[in-house]
Amino acid sequence: MGHRGLVVWFTGLSGAGKSTIAEAVEQHLTTHGMHAYRLDGDELRTGLSSDLGFSPRDREENVRRVGEVARLMADAGLIVLVALISPYRSDRDRVRERVGDRFVEVFVDTPLDICESRDPKGLYLRARQGLIPEFTGVSAPYEEPLHPELRIAAGSCTIDDAVSQVSELVRQRCT
Amino acid sequence: MGHRGLVVWFTGLSGAGKSTIAEAVEQHLTTHGMHAYRLDGDELRTGLSSDLGFSPRDREENVRRVGEVARLMADAGLIVLVALISPYRSDRDRVRERVGDRFVEVFVDTPLDICESRDPKGLYLRARQGLIPEFTGVSAPYEEPLHPELRIAAGSCTIDDAVSQVSELVRQRCT
Repeated sequence: MGHRGLVVWFTGLSGAGKSTIAEAVEQHLTTHGMHAYRLDGDELRTGLSSDLGFSPRDREENVRRVGEVARLMADAGLIVLVALISPYRSDRDRVRERVGDRFVEVFVDTPLDICESRDPKGLYLRARQGLIPEFTGVSAPYEEPLHPELRIAAGSCTIDDAVSQVSELVRQRCT
Repeated sequence: MGHRGLVVWFTGLSGAGKSTIAEAVEQHLTTHGMHAYRLDGDELRTGLSSDLGFSPRDREENVRRVGEVARLMADAGLIVLVALISPYRSDRDRVRERVGDRFVEVFVDTPLDICESRDPKGLYLRARQGLIPEFTGVSAPYEEPLHPELRIAAGSCTIDDAVSQVSELVRQRCT
């Protein structure tokens, strides 16, 4: 395919902009002749992880499975863009260990109040009303990455800025 | 990538030759410039499905997960070669429904006595000794495909023959 496989793991709160950035990066890389593929947490919940809920244990299993799929796809030579809240540090670190040096972590660091004011799917509102249990940032923890390969201040930069930063990282790592 | 994604699902008894044929097909397609990737049942058991056993229910879940991964990889444009006993017709049919017209089923039809005489990993011997419970063909059923896209009489044809048959099918379906 002309490049190495890579797993780019976007983590952050719901509404932080993970999927939006991953989509824009996918489009950018594809336009530039690279084989990128996006694994979206929400979509995987209806397929591979349709049997799982949102307890810490189920989240752990969800992250583990998505990590395995991403690893296989990277092994097949793809640049895999994973957009997944993945709130627990230990779960993400386990994927990092399993994938090895083809794993890069991108922390989409958008403050909770901004995520909540965006609330694109109305989830924060419902979580505050107690209608969604174990909602990350409201009634369940989010553990920030300590040493992400990239931190995007997505509350204060443009999509184009974010895409440039990620694409530059991808180019460094996949050639 | 120059071709459509496709899921080629090799089903058959343990020792039937699924992995051997899938490997040879992968090599053939790759040599001819196609992007093929092999998902091997045994290997997936140590990763994606490491939490699953061999009960009917766990086999069903294993086939479901592998089917989801294959679907995603085909969606990414790859020709995915799945080598998996997948003994239950309903489990395979569920994958077929989920993947749609990019799914082709290859029945590696090797008689049980030949598989057992090969016994490459000594599994049949151990199964006959009662050391492996629920072993397909010995103490658990194998349900043959009723309408596979291809049936390979792998007990009486050469690997080259098998590779030709599968590759021809792939070419018809992925362009």
